[in-house]
Amino acid sequence: MGSSRQSPRCYRQSVVITFLTDFGLQDDFVGTCHGVIARIAPEARVIDVTHGIPPQAVLQAAIVLQATLPYLPVGVHLAVVDPGVGSDRRSIAIRTGDGRFFVGPDNGLLLLAADIGGIVAAHELQNPAYRLADVSRTFHARDVFAPAAAHLALGVPIDDFGPAVPVDELVRVAVPVPQLGRAQVSATVLSIDRFGNVALNLRRDDLSALGVARGSRVEIRLTFDRYYAVVAETFADAASGELILYEDAYGFVTVAISQGSAARLTGVRQGDELRVAIA
Amino acid sequence: MGSSRQSPRCYRQSVVITFLTDFGLQDDFVGTCHGVIARIAPEARVIDVTHGIPPQAVLQAAIVLQATLPYLPVGVHLAVVDPGVGSDRRSIAIRTGDGRFFVGPDNGLLLLAADIGGIVAAHELQNPAYRLADVSRTFHARDVFAPAAAHLALGVPIDDFGPAVPVDELVRVAVPVPQLGRAQVSATVLSIDRFGNVALNLRRDDLSALGVARGSRVEIRLTFDRYYAVVAETFADAASGELILYEDAYGFVTVAISQGSAARLTGVRQGDELRVAIA
Amino acid sequence: MGSSRQSPRCYRQSVVITFLTDFGLQDDFVGTCHGVIARIAPEARVIDVTHGIPPQAVLQAAIVLQATLPYLPVGVHLAVVDPGVGSDRRSIAIRTGDGRFFVGPDNGLLLLAADIGGIVAAHELQNPAYRLADVSRTFHARDVFAPAAAHLALGVPIDDFGPAVPVDELVRVAVPVPQLGRAQVSATVLSIDRFGNVALNLRRDDLSALGVARGSRVEIRLTFDRYYAVVAETFADAASGELILYEDAYGFVTVAISQGSAARLTGVRQGDELRVAIA
Repeated sequence: MGSSRQSPRCYRQSVVITFLTDFGLQDDFVGTCHGVIARIAPEARVIDVTHGIPPQAVLQAAIVLQATLPYLPVGVHLAVVDPGVGSDRRSIAIRTGDGRFFVGPDNGLLLLAADIGGIVAAHELQNPAYRLADVSRTFHARDVFAPAAAHLALGVPIDDFGPAVPVDELVRVAVPVPQLGRAQVSATVLSIDRFGNVALNLRRDDLSALGVARGSRVEIRLTFDRYYAVVAETFADAASGELILYEDAYGFVTVAISQGSAARLTGVRQGDELRVAIA
Repeated sequence: MGSSRQSPRCYRQSVVITFLTDFGLQDDFVGTCHGVIARIAPEARVIDVTHGIPPQAVLQAAIVLQATLPYLPVGVHLAVVDPGVGSDRRSIAIRTGDGRFFVGPDNGLLLLAADIGGIVAAHELQNPAYRLADVSRTFHARDVFAPAAAHLALGVPIDDFGPAVPVDELVRVAVPVPQLGRAQVSATVLSIDRFGNVALNLRRDDLSALGVARGSRVEIRLTFDRYYAVVAETFADAASGELILYEDAYGFVTVAISQGSAARLTGVRQGDELRVAIA
Repeated sequence: MGSSRQSPRCYRQSVVITFLTDFGLQDDFVGTCHGVIARIAPEARVIDVTHGIPPQAVLQAAIVLQATLPYLPVGVHLAVVDPGVGSDRRSIAIRTGDGRFFVGPDNGLLLLAADIGGIVAAHELQNPAYRLADVSRTFHARDVFAPAAAHLALGVPIDDFGPAVPVDELVRVAVPVPQLGRAQVSATVLSIDRFGNVALNLRRDDLSALGVARGSRVEIRLTFDRYYAVVAETFADAASGELILYEDAYGFVTVAISQGSAARLTGVRQGDELRVAIA
């Protein structure tokens, strides 16, 4: 009898907390947050989405969280890129219509992803019961956000964390919009990956609007340089060393070189503007 | 009664998926695959072997997977170093005689490790039921391989994934063979680790054949430079700053400097050739 | 009846093993140790504190383990920074008064952290039953330490591992002590984090003794350069680009720049000495 009462615990799916930061893995920051979560919610499972966001790059983190969310289990999504730590920026938890929770600073980081399921509630993280006893001025991931994520994983209702924040008062980041002209489009570099692939704030439709299709040759214009690229579907469509423009696995138009680094060749960096024109 | 029927689930060892790539940890690639696996097989446990394989270094990855396999639990071994993604290279799952499964591209990456237990079956990953609904052209780790590994962890029979591939049709990588002479041996740099230790495609027996034993002095000849080293068992056998030749923990003869980086001193890189001669 | 006897296994909290090294994540070293642990203690859960300790920096690792311990679950704390591997340095397991275990080389790495709970017992790792069958000369993390941690997680009594070591015979590292003068203090750089923040071997009280408080201006003197900084509580207290001195989240006085890298600006490195003086 006793065992049948307890058995459900065996079958309860452990709650997943996903974790995304700009902390890198050189220091203990990520591991310490894992420790804090394990102390509060030992059965929660933490999946590290990435900790390689460039330091303080809130926009880039917001875009990565949005792009990866459909591939992550429904759970608590903890994200911390927090240049304003120690200021009066709010700490928040969000609940969305698809049953997900988001935890992090109120600086726009969470909202692109939270919009996917639609924000149902947002609360400020003020209840000291769900923070560590001592809250530092510079490491809220450890002292405020990880504890909140762990308590959400334990099933603490979001209303218990603090006062509701009206959705239209949440801080939003401006996502750069491409400038579409008749023969060219101005785009912004969203991110550069390990392989030197350069993702732009362009979708395939933007290229179509320009009359550019698979096999087209385009010119990529930087401030001082210009490069020619071929519109391709994958690296295999191009000769080794050839610059290509392709739709990456998240739908962003991306500049790449088969077997090389487009970032190193062109020298572009995150945030740079460039123009794509019909060649 | 109900509880006794369900109890076995409590005791079922969760299946281990090991994961090795050249993705690095800067981007979300690894985390996203963890997410995909957790959505399909929430009880599987993922062990990251390494994601630090140099980009597209299939041979090096194959050697690392082979060397580490005896230290990994029996499970599903997911490995992705995939310069041919988007081409017509096959995606495969392999079952070996020791009860392990391997999942990855058919480019030789899996075979050195799979040979340890002996390949019993190989199947192409074609069944759309075990892929994500949309398969991108450039991120098969997320869309094809991680889902396959997760479904194998769930117990889906390997035959269900697609048509069998004859073992002798699987792609193999050529492992460089040292050239043994009377007074010297030509070797290739297999890999360089974080500490700057330079692993060669040599085994201790190759040195013995040269008449080189512990305490011997040898000459290491590069294209333009030569260095003297002492054959040692461990760093502790050499003075600080002294170059040594030792058998590393996986059995590869390795060039190192006590308290320093042999790679930095000598400037050698992965794939370089060098000669070891009696001094 | 059978199910009620077995049920407790369902509810046993899985033991946590925390893991800290200087191995980095480029190679397989960390992943292989995870594999070894999973083979011996499949239900243990491993939390990676960090593997980004600079190579062979025993003191820095000891300080990180000490600083992070209060945030880690009670469990087995495996730590390996081991320049003496292969020498006759001892391998040890320690039990502390707060129910924690520590495993690693006897080079001082474990003791700052173990002192928190008070060392109750220390044993040398000599029992071959709790090592891998073949122990290499250079990778004791895999062959000795990870197996010991896994067996401790399984509940093997610490006395079974080998002979007791008197606590006063354990090797200790010397933690650098600041030199407090009347108008200045000489400090040592303990570590530099991903953001370029420079942690010193100073506590807030050391600054107070100097008569320095929030808002004070101080001079930071290196061998050839000097910089002015403001004593602040957090980055938000300073203008962008301004050098600040603040107490970090572990209580160390730290030099930082709001939105920049203090390490890059000043060029200081771990172990460097500098002086902080009233400006």
